[in-house]
This record gives sequence, structure tokens and C-alpha cells, in this order.
Amino acid sequence: MTCIQKEITISSKPRGFHSITNEVVSQFPEIGELQNGICQIFIKHTSASLTINEDADPTVRLDFESHFNELVPENQSYYQHTFEGSDDMPAHLKASILGSSVQIPITNGKLNMGTWQGIYLCEHRNHTGSRKLVLTIWGERLVK
Amino acid sequence: MTCIQKEITISSKPRGFHSITNEVVSQFPEIGELQNGICQIFIKHTSASLTINEDADPTVRLDFESHFNELVPENQSYYQHTFEGSDDMPAHLKASILGSSVQIPITNGKLNMGTWQGIYLCEHRNHTGSRKLVLTIWGERLVK
Amino acid sequence: MTCIQKEITISSKPRGFHSITNEVVSQFPEIGELQNGICQIFIKHTSASLTINEDADPTVRLDFESHFNELVPENQSYYQHTFEGSDDMPAHLKASILGSSVQIPITNGKLNMGTWQGIYLCEHRNHTGSRKLVLTIWGERLVK
Repeated sequence: MTCIQKEITISSKPRGFHSITNEVVSQFPEIGELQNGICQIFIKHTSASLTINEDADPTVRLDFESHFNELVPENQSYYQHTFEGSDDMPAHLKASILGSSVQIPITNGKLNMGTWQGIYLCEHRNHTGSRKLVLTIWGERLVK
Repeated sequence: MTCIQKEITISSKPRGFHSITNEVVSQFPEIGELQNGICQIFIKHTSASLTINEDADPTVRLDFESHFNELVPENQSYYQHTFEGSDDMPAHLKASILGSSVQIPITNGKLNMGTWQGIYLCEHRNHTGSRKLVLTIWGERLVK
Repeated sequence: MTCIQKEITISSKPRGFHSITNEVVSQFPEIGELQNGICQIFIKHTSASLTINEDADPTVRLDFESHFNELVPENQSYYQHTFEGSDDMPAHLKASILGSSVQIPITNGKLNMGTWQGIYLCEHRNHTGSRKLVLTIWGERLVK
């Protein structure tokens, strides 16, 4: 077995849900070296998150933004952590509901997701910079 | 260390939360070959999900269905992705809130969960077919 | 590659969100032996959970408790699983929304989280005992 790790940067994105499958795969060709195993993607931030969902119709991602704003509204009277802006505490809550990592099987040198699945970067702040991801793969090497 | 992977199919289930612990374990006896490690279960779909929770009293799973229907209602006015039915967009949202994989420690050839824990398949669509899971284990082999 | 596993106990904590980063790291010095890899933390309970979030300002953790009580209220009329107290079914639901494990990259012998990230133990019951965690690390050994 082998384990390979790389840190990458995703350029700044507007608040919302963004497909990053191609960006991740193209920056990590080492996925192609594994016969089987797992690819983990970890986001080093507390106001953005990662999830796996439908990657075909872009209105799905718009509905994610709308619904998460209902689920975690800004300006709740009970929020105490407010000094970084009204979008900050909701961003932390959304990040934990969705999670800070995804783990995807690798089979025959490729991410083994379902036909419609893709990786979303979920940007919960109005204004932010680029985001750092740690990519780690482990598994058995392809026999060539 | 070793890494073993298998794809299995779970027969079609009604909308709701279903215990699949026995079905997974019986289809993956290779878990018994590891001294320690992890078992990952990944679902290759965007309208069903996986979680770990109380596997004794079946009313817990009924309450999961009731509460997730409150948390993510159908027919919200802001949904744009509606052409696959009123249960479709809520299914995508529930899938990301719960997650598309679980990772469970393996110790002495067995899943090392707590006494009450089991694996749920969360079926969020009214009508659907079977569901595909990718099972991956990795860790140190048992010394016999 | 190597895989090392250890079970630890976290002393009983009041209902709420608690930073346990230092407690985990100090009980698992073997993290320092890996060049790269992953550390998984798994909680063997169905009414407490784990997440990664902002570990600097303690009001963030208070706001987590407030908001999760809004998201998953007690005494909903549709709850059937009520015999263990009004905080029990909400505890199960919160546990699945947040998740029963976190997976964190290890780089150069250290957990490779972002500057502000820490590990939360999320205690969802009013009165409970200690909590058991399974810690598992895997990856390439440091070359000394």
C-alpha cells in the first residue's frame, strides 16, 4: 500500500455551492496510480465546507444555497459570536452540518462515484480569499 | 497493511431509515481478516445517504424520517430543481446533511461500534430502485 | 505504511460543545510517527458526536448549542421514541447531523488542520457518563 498527500489552493469563489470535481482531479493525477483505495479531501477552514451531491443540473446548487440560508438564518437573537459579521456564525454552523472532509473510493485509478455525483465546495462567507485543501490518497498500487 | 474493496447492491427499500448493519457485514467477511483498521461504506447516489445511529428501538428510525421531513420540507417556494418530483430536491439536501459515507473502526476482525450503534441506509425518495455501495477496508492483517 | 489504533475515554462533560483537540493529541503521541496520513476519531455513542470547527472564541461553541436546540427541538409531537427523556431523541438526531467521526490529515507528524480549526466533542444529553473514542491513524512512517 501507499499513501500520497498534496496541499492545493482553490481560488476565491462567491458565496454558494460550487462543483470542484474537475479542479481536484486535474491537480492530483496520482489518483491514477491506485488499483483501489480512498481519496480524502479536507478543507482547512471553518466557514467553508465540502459535500458530495448532484453535479448535473446547476439549479440543485442554487437550491442548496437557498435552503441552507433557511436552515441557518443570519441575525438570530441568540448568536453571541457576531463581531465578524452577520454571515460568520451561520458559516460556522453550515460548515459543521455539511462537514470538513469527503472520502471517496478509488477503483482502477479513478474516483468511483455514482454517475450523478460530484464534489461541492460550499462557500459560506460573502467575502473571502482562496481556500486550502489537503488531498490524501491511500490504497494498493495499480499493477502495470 | 492491506486494502480490500467490493461493490455491493442493497435491494430497493421504501422511503425511510433502514438498518443495514447485518447486510453489510454478511456481504463483506473480509472484515474478519484485519487486526485493526477502518471500514468505509460509500453510497453512489445523491438522494439516499448513510449514517450511524441507535439500532435497537425501531421508533428511533421513524422519528428520523419525521424530523428530516420537518428540517427539509417539500414544495418550498424557493426550490428551482423541481422537475423530478417534490421529493427530489429534499432528497438531495437530506443526503448532504447526513453524508454519503461512514467510516467505522475495525478491531480484532470486527466493526468496533458502540453497543447501540448500527448503520442506517437513509432512503429519501418515494420510489426508487436498488442502491449501490462501495465497501473498502484497510489496516493491518490479523496474525493467526 | 502502518496503522495504529487506540481506545480512549473522555471524562463526562455537560451538555454542549467542547474542544477536545489537546486531550486527543496528548493521548495519542503516535501521531508524531507519521510522515503523512490520516487520523480518524470515532465516537462509540449515539447521543454525542464529533465535528471540526472554530477553536478560538468560546462563544462559537455556545452558539452551536443554541442553534442545534432550534434545529432539533425537544418535545416535538411526532417523536415516538420518548421513554429515555425529552433530550434523548433530539440527541440522536443531532448526532447524525454532525456525525460520529472526523478524519484529519497528518503531515510531518502533526494534525494538519487550519489555524482556527479544532475538534469538538458535542455532548447532546443532559446527564451522561464518560464517552469512549476509538483513535486510528494510518500512513507512511517518518524517516528519521
